[in-house]
Order: sequence, then C-alpha cells, then structure tokens
Amino acid sequence: MGKNCIVAQSGGPTAAINASLAGVISAVNKSNNYEKIYGSLHGIQGVLRNEFLELSNATEDFIERLAATPAMYLGSCRYKLPDYREDEAAYKDIFEMFDRYNVGAFFYIGGNDSMDTVAKLSEYADAMGSSIRIAGIPKTIDNDLLVTDHTPGFASAAKYVASSIREVAYDTYIYDLQSVTIVEVMGRDAGWLTGASVLTRNEFSFAPHLIYLPEVAFDREQFIEDVRKSIDRYKNVIVAVSEGIHDAEGNYIAAGVAADDKFGHAQLSGAGKALEYLVKEKIGVKVRSIEINVLQRAAGHMASKTDLEEALSLGAEAVRFTELGETGFMTVIKRMRNEPYEYIIEHSPVKDIANKAKPVPVEWINDAHNDVTEEFISYIKPLVEGEVDVFYKDGIVDYLPIEHLVQTK
Amino acid sequence: MGKNCIVAQSGGPTAAINASLAGVISAVNKSNNYEKIYGSLHGIQGVLRNEFLELSNATEDFIERLAATPAMYLGSCRYKLPDYREDEAAYKDIFEMFDRYNVGAFFYIGGNDSMDTVAKLSEYADAMGSSIRIAGIPKTIDNDLLVTDHTPGFASAAKYVASSIREVAYDTYIYDLQSVTIVEVMGRDAGWLTGASVLTRNEFSFAPHLIYLPEVAFDREQFIEDVRKSIDRYKNVIVAVSEGIHDAEGNYIAAGVAADDKFGHAQLSGAGKALEYLVKEKIGVKVRSIEINVLQRAAGHMASKTDLEEALSLGAEAVRFTELGETGFMTVIKRMRNEPYEYIIEHSPVKDIANKAKPVPVEWINDAHNDVTEEFISYIKPLVEGEVDVFYKDGIVDYLPIEHLVQTK
Repeated sequence: MGKNCIVAQSGGPTAAINASLAGVISAVNKSNNYEKIYGSLHGIQGVLRNEFLELSNATEDFIERLAATPAMYLGSCRYKLPDYREDEAAYKDIFEMFDRYNVGAFFYIGGNDSMDTVAKLSEYADAMGSSIRIAGIPKTIDNDLLVTDHTPGFASAAKYVASSIREVAYDTYIYDLQSVTIVEVMGRDAGWLTGASVLTRNEFSFAPHLIYLPEVAFDREQFIEDVRKSIDRYKNVIVAVSEGIHDAEGNYIAAGVAADDKFGHAQLSGAGKALEYLVKEKIGVKVRSIEINVLQRAAGHMASKTDLEEALSLGAEAVRFTELGETGFMTVIKRMRNEPYEYIIEHSPVKDIANKAKPVPVEWINDAHNDVTEEFISYIKPLVEGEVDVFYKDGIVDYLPIEHLVQTK
Repeated sequence: MGKNCIVAQSGGPTAAINASLAGVISAVNKSNNYEKIYGSLHGIQGVLRNEFLELSNATEDFIERLAATPAMYLGSCRYKLPDYREDEAAYKDIFEMFDRYNVGAFFYIGGNDSMDTVAKLSEYADAMGSSIRIAGIPKTIDNDLLVTDHTPGFASAAKYVASSIREVAYDTYIYDLQSVTIVEVMGRDAGWLTGASVLTRNEFSFAPHLIYLPEVAFDREQFIEDVRKSIDRYKNVIVAVSEGIHDAEGNYIAAGVAADDKFGHAQLSGAGKALEYLVKEKIGVKVRSIEINVLQRAAGHMASKTDLEEALSLGAEAVRFTELGETGFMTVIKRMRNEPYEYIIEHSPVKDIANKAKPVPVEWINDAHNDVTEEFISYIKPLVEGEVDVFYKDGIVDYLPIEHLVQTK
C-alpha cells in the first residue's frame, strides 16, 4: 500500500496555476507509488486546519476543465512559517497531519513566498529524519523566480496584456486628435509583464510607443520629453508603465500624487494615474490612464496554450521527481532553443530560489530607458503562442465550479 | 448608371460598429441600384475634407474580418452641425461633395449625437428638395437610444463585463478573508451595462452581490449598510456600480473624492475609487476597486455573435430601406419573442430618436435600489448569446489592419 499526497496552492492567482494542480493530480492518479491525493484548502493553512478535498477520483473531464480555470481551485493563503528552531509548533502540527493522512509527498504551487514554505518544510523534514518529500512548483505572473527560465501564469498574463493594449490602440486610433493613453501593468519590482506589452506592436502600429520598467530609475522630465517626441511622430501615443516605477531616489511614482479624500486621509493613486496628471499638467493634450488591474492575472479566457502545457508538465514532473527520491526542490523550465521553441523540465534546490527575485536584465532595456530590446522580444515571443478552448455558458465565460471556496450562508 | 453611397461612423467605439459598416458595404456591393461605396474618414468631417476610402472592391474575406474588428474602421469624430437656418456653410459644403461624388445615399453609424447629424442632414435635404437619402444606423454600448429594442455594441460590452466580473470573482474567492471588490462600469446616465453584470451570477456564486445604477439616487449610508449585510452573508462581496451614480441632489459620487495632485489641481476619481475609500473608512475590510475602462467597449475578442449579426443586419437593411425610398430614418430592432429569441429590423423617424435617451425603467430596479429584477435579466439574456471566431497572430489577438488611421511620420 503506497503513501498519499497533499497538494496546495498559495500566493496570488494566475491563469495557469490550476493547470499545475491538474498535472499533479493526474500524475498521482496514474502513479504506481502513490495512493490518494488530497487538496489542502487555502494553502498550508488547510493542513493546519484539517481542511481537505479528496481529488483521487478526478475524471479526465474534471482535469481538463481544471487546467483551463483561472485563479486557484484550492484557494490561497499568505502564511509565513517561522524558523522551526525558534517556534516548532506549526511544524509539529503539519507533520502530525502528514502522518495522520499517511503522506509521502507534499506539493506546493506558488511564488517566492510559497517557496519559502517549501524550503522550511523540507529543511525541517531533513532535520527530523522524515522521509516525506517536499516539492515546489512555480507560478507567478511576475516571472521573477530564479533558476527557471520563466514562470507559469506569466505568459498568459502577457498574452492578455498585449492583446488588451492592442484593443486599446484600436480604440485610441479612431480619434483625429493628439492623445496620450497610459496603461498601468502589474509588477511592483519586476518589469517582465510590462515589457511583454511590446508584443502589441505590428506592421502598422508601434503601440506601446513607450515602455517603462521598474528596473531602472524613472525620470519625470525625461518622460515628458519622450511623450512630446512621440506625440509629434505618432499623434496617438500609448505608454505602458509598470505599477512599480520609481525615481532615482527609490520613491514610487505612484506616490507622487497624494490624493486627499473628503475624510482627510492620504490616498495613493497608481503610477498610471500619476503620469496622467503629469501629462495633463505639462503637455495638455487629451490623456487617459487605464489600470488593467486583476483582470490581467485572472483572464483564463485568453490563456497561452504554451503556458498551460508547461504548467501542467511542471506539476506532473514534480510528482515524478519525488518518486525518484528528490525532495526540497522546485521544478524549473530549461529553455533548449527558441526556433522552434523547446524546453525541458528539471528540478533545482528550492533554498536557492525562495525569497529571491529575478529582475529584467538591464541589458534588455534600451539606453533611453523607454523600451525593451530585441533580446527581450526573442525571450517572450514563443511563450504566448497558442490558444486554449474557451467554454461559455449562456453567453458568459464559464469555468469549473468552485462552490467549496464560496460562502453563501 | 446608379448613384454612389457614402458611409461614415461617429461617436465612441464599440465591438459591433464595424459589423454595421460591413453590412452597409456588403448590401451596396450587391445592390442593383447603387454603384460605388465610399467610406468617409472621421465621420462627417471626411465629407467636409474630401477624405474617403473606396470600399467597393471589398472582398468577402475583408468583410468578414471587418465585422469582427472592434473600434471604428473609418475613424470617428465629435462634430455637431449647427442649425442650417443659422449657419448653412457646412451643409453647402457637404451637399456639394455629395454632388461631386454622385451620391444617392448617406449612411451614418452612431449614437444619439450622430443621429442629430442624420436628422439635420435629412431635414436640410428635404428643405432643399434634394433626393439624397440620409439614413442612421444605431450603435452605442450605453444602449440608450429610443425606439430600438437595444443597440449594437451593448451586448458585446455586456458579455465582456459579465465575463470579466466572473474572472474577478474567481480571483476574489481564493482568499479566506472578508473583502469588498468594487467594479466600475461605463454608463454615465444609463445603467444598462452595469445592470448586465447580473449575468455573472451562476448556481454557486451570487456575484455581483450588489448592483447600483444611475437611474435612482445613490445613498452612501444605505450603501454601507448593504455592504455590511453582504459581507456577513457572502464574505467576499463584489459590487457593480455605474460610473454615473449620484446622490439625491444629483451630485456624482465620483466627485465625492476630490483628490489634489501635487500641483494643487483638483482631480476627480471615479465612482469605484470613491466607494473604495468609503468602504475602507466605514467598514475597514480589504477593499479594491476596478475600473473596466475602455477595455469594455473595444474587446472584439469577446463579442456577442448575436450582437454582431444584428449590427450587420441593421447596416444592410438601412441600404435596402433607402432603395425603397426611405430617408431621415434610423434602422431599429424590434424584438418579436424571447424564447427562442427573434427580432425584425424596421426603420423609424430619426428626429424622434436624436438627442434623446432611454434609461433603464425604474420598475426593472429592485425596491432596495441595489439590484435589477427578473424583467431586466429576461431582456438582456438572449443578447449576449453566441461567440465569434477570434483571430490570433503570433499569440496576440489580431484584427483588420487600420494603417489609414495610424500616423507614423
């Protein structure tokens, strides 16, 4: 009689994280080594609270719908484990639960913070001489995890951002007057997703005409200069900015506008809104800002097929690696070639990945700091390829039901 | 030798207005009465400036791609004709151009303002004894035109709004903590599109839990009461609000937050942002606001098939009605039955439609003023049915090129 597995999800939602869950479930259910698979609700908290969904009886149809459903089927948490040497209580509870459920392997799908949990649990298991395998599976639209070539969720968000900016460009080009449209993209510390907006460009439209990433300092005066020049040349100018752009002193541009509500509280506007005000003040043309907001991370209807396939493989391979005896790792994508695009899945020690971040290389940003380079484009291009089947019910996008996450007293 | 036609577009973009253009082109090209069809660039201004695209040689493939391309292929304008009795100059220029191009019919696709142009031109033609037919074809995501059951562009925007809110709901439900998410939808005076968010609801999720339209006064205290109750019951609460909600005195809620930028200028935040601050202040749970912005009117990738088919018919039928001798009309949709949904296209005097607006009937808003009724749902449901083929190129949504609208010096 084999051991059982637990899988959980953590951090922010993406369009691809459920594909990794589907990969784990599918691989466990096909495995000769493992028996049952339990989904822990709300990340590691589900283990502490004994809140599980049994997933062993998942049908092919369920797996397929799951892979195409955005956000997180099992729910998320933002829970940080303490150092076990200082406070062992949670660890004892977790490993007691692992014993109770006869667990042989625990899979955690998430970003930097979640990999911290994987690193700590595997370190604890090691210190206790436990044979339980602890594996991490990457996801984040920020694409800022080390070692892996890129992270699931990023390419789907990129596809949505570039497609949405193309639609914004069509919307903007209809007016025969000078205008500036500023699109704010997620990514506080890493500009990967903002840079991906470069894919919007085609043979007749250069939008976004200016792209600003948080990896280099943002200069307000240079920005106004850039916009003036672009208006002259293109009339309708579209600007993509990362929410995290900041000046040379490290102050967020978003904080440049300190809005006071009627109760007298200071409020922060986003970077896009701050630049909208700046353009209105300094240039005076028609200007608008658009914050794509959470729509970009939850848009399952425009997921990249390449992204979902990779996410699925990263989940399935994690199961296989634990069967080979590996623990304390995160599955990673290694790019083998670009044309045609090929990759393999490997594993890498999670302790080298957790709590660290991978910014866009400064060499991939142009000298004027208002665009990305050809290297960036070559990197991102293959990742957004391919479309997935989109399900509609009564005319509205439809996903796998998540009634277990929804409260209706 | 038959006469020629001119077609133009005006007002704000929608996902369906090019389908009406496709309908006009297709009908003229098949017509035995008309010869050539010219597209006037940037609305009626193209006629004044002699800026035309000849569309007579449009292929089937072009027509098909055009119908599925959002925004406006011919560009837009916000040009209001004076009363010809006070200032005849522009009229003379326009009708001279009509003569020069041997025009038999002029088709204008747009909203209330554009219908004002149609009414004025047809009145002038009548006064001058001109035989040129002047026809209006409706479009507006606001759905606020009189006589017609609904307007092209509305249902596609509704499909996008309801689908996007469903994705926002999936994003929101993953967190095991109380939260409020406020989604601001376009529609300053009419709540049709905000009300359409009701289509997000399904068997396990009641989101949006609260819906506020501009047709009734918005009460901040009642809103906070509503939200408190909803949090208790649903934990994660999603609120859909129209950008145009206002209090009993007619003051916009959007103006309730007067943000001062660092230059000391008063700035307006949107209604969603204003309510975000209010919830943060009065309730204190996690709160976020999302402005769907222009994405909702330009999202050709999620157009309603029903909407595009109707838009096409409204264009084609306008041509047919002019061939029958009609002028000074707008084509309108008359709903015949709901299950199965059936409609016919008629024409109606444009002077009764121009410059007027059709709000959501107050009886279609619930007594608590925080939801829509079953009548509203029955009305909107059939309109969002059906999906269109979406074209992708290199992984990004792709539409008909519009190089004639794009400046690249």
